[in-house]
Amino acid sequence: MKCTVCRGPALIDLRRHNANFCAEHLAKFCRDQVERAIHDFDMLEQGARILIAVSGGKDSLALWDILNHLGYDTAGLYVGLGIGEYSDVSGRFVQKFASERGLELLEVDLRSEHGYDIPTAAELTRRSPCSSCGLSKRHLFDRAAIDGGYDALVTGHNLDDEAAVLFGNVMRWQMDYLARQRPVLPERDGLPRKVKPLVRLTERETAAYCVVTGIDYQVDECPMAAGNKHIAYKELLNEMEVASPGTKADFYLSFQRRAVHQLDGTLAEGRESLGTCDSCGAPSPSDICAFCRLKSTTARENR
Amino acid sequence: MKCTVCRGPALIDLRRHNANFCAEHLAKFCRDQVERAIHDFDMLEQGARILIAVSGGKDSLALWDILNHLGYDTAGLYVGLGIGEYSDVSGRFVQKFASERGLELLEVDLRSEHGYDIPTAAELTRRSPCSSCGLSKRHLFDRAAIDGGYDALVTGHNLDDEAAVLFGNVMRWQMDYLARQRPVLPERDGLPRKVKPLVRLTERETAAYCVVTGIDYQVDECPMAAGNKHIAYKELLNEMEVASPGTKADFYLSFQRRAVHQLDGTLAEGRESLGTCDSCGAPSPSDICAFCRLKSTTARENR
Repeated sequence: MKCTVCRGPALIDLRRHNANFCAEHLAKFCRDQVERAIHDFDMLEQGARILIAVSGGKDSLALWDILNHLGYDTAGLYVGLGIGEYSDVSGRFVQKFASERGLELLEVDLRSEHGYDIPTAAELTRRSPCSSCGLSKRHLFDRAAIDGGYDALVTGHNLDDEAAVLFGNVMRWQMDYLARQRPVLPERDGLPRKVKPLVRLTERETAAYCVVTGIDYQVDECPMAAGNKHIAYKELLNEMEVASPGTKADFYLSFQRRAVHQLDGTLAEGRESLGTCDSCGAPSPSDICAFCRLKSTTARENR
Repeated sequence: MKCTVCRGPALIDLRRHNANFCAEHLAKFCRDQVERAIHDFDMLEQGARILIAVSGGKDSLALWDILNHLGYDTAGLYVGLGIGEYSDVSGRFVQKFASERGLELLEVDLRSEHGYDIPTAAELTRRSPCSSCGLSKRHLFDRAAIDGGYDALVTGHNLDDEAAVLFGNVMRWQMDYLARQRPVLPERDGLPRKVKPLVRLTERETAAYCVVTGIDYQVDECPMAAGNKHIAYKELLNEMEVASPGTKADFYLSFQRRAVHQLDGTLAEGRESLGTCDSCGAPSPSDICAFCRLKSTTARENR
């Protein structure tokens, strides 16, 4: 198997691109795909000052590395979720990545700064862990991006993530979720601009990027995510991808190209009702935001 | 296992309805579901005069029986496709059904009336057999419904069929196809009103209806449909249905309830360009309609 670019020995084949790459040209391919996503979806101005949500996994570290390479002014934000050993190890991968490259890393610790961790929140609220975790991270990332005056909050959602979420939303035709499923959401009402530059790369590709560029990352999946429906959707999409390479990218990208703009009206409707949280001042559709409600539930139950 | 209605012995369980039925109440359930679809989607006026496209399979014969039961003025149309033994047997099931019930049956034979059959068309045109077959049936059913002055052309597409087609269209976001995927298409420009009253029933349910009401039908799948992509989509949807009963109905019906009307604009655009075929006068977007082109290709190649 030879590299499609240099004819040297290839180490990965990408069937949907009908291409094979050596280490050097795989890294170039990944950077080109991120650059193309940024260009095609008008994600970021050249040299923008951005905050990257980093988990210690392959996606967010690959993305940080690539955006740094592409000349953006980057800082990372890591939220310590308190999921035992898993979180400890994840945090150390992030710290090592940032210090080796001299990049700025912000850290928030849920337990010491906000009085709860994800396992406790999941147990006390009887929500799924992914739901408590998602809302906590969203709140803290949004706030840090606004408080720090960054041009955008950038997350490492890859093509597999986005296609699986789209698939789930389509299976139930959840029009409000579909309307918001865009790789760029503009700044509004106290929420930062949000951008997903990995939408043209699969998790296999970001993992390979980390391997060939020497990025150490948390390989384990989150132990609390087992049974998450998106994992089943990813498996279904992978089955279809094997039968017909390109299916996943076509599904996600043709939605962006042809369908999502038909839902502009739905998006506008959903936007009308955003006020601010009486407790913390964050943008919220209700008097007290979901994060403050979660904090007060866990504080009460922890007593 | 007891019948949910009468507590007698049940012979089928319908997990998505959380119900079991005996023969009598399964038949009632199927008729009720058809009546509900007709009502919910404003399909037919009470007692309308309708033409049913019948293939000899479980769906179209169950549908004919149910619509006859519900008091509609029905005639069937069978198109002989010339797919060897399969077509011969299918035709005999239709004739037996109609004659036993004293129902009017129209018949068109592709080979003797139009000079080709589906295997020949597929070979000569290098189209997939399903494509030649679909366009031939559409043309002949439309024409018969218009010429006979029927209030509607009714087809036996069931929930599995419609969900699989929707799934395929969604995977590629084919907006024009999505916009037209409705259980009712109104009459327009020389095309009859088209109605699909089986969209609330699966193929397992229509098969069970035939068994319990004594309808003999063609059990074999069409031998030319192997490899058809919709079969793979049906299998995927069935996997999801097993994991989560109701998935398939939710996918199709929530599309109808929430999404399809967002595409009214796309539907209107697609409608502008319909003229008539110079050769046969049928509605067509081009000078010569696809049916007449197929006829002339097969006539030329057959020479």
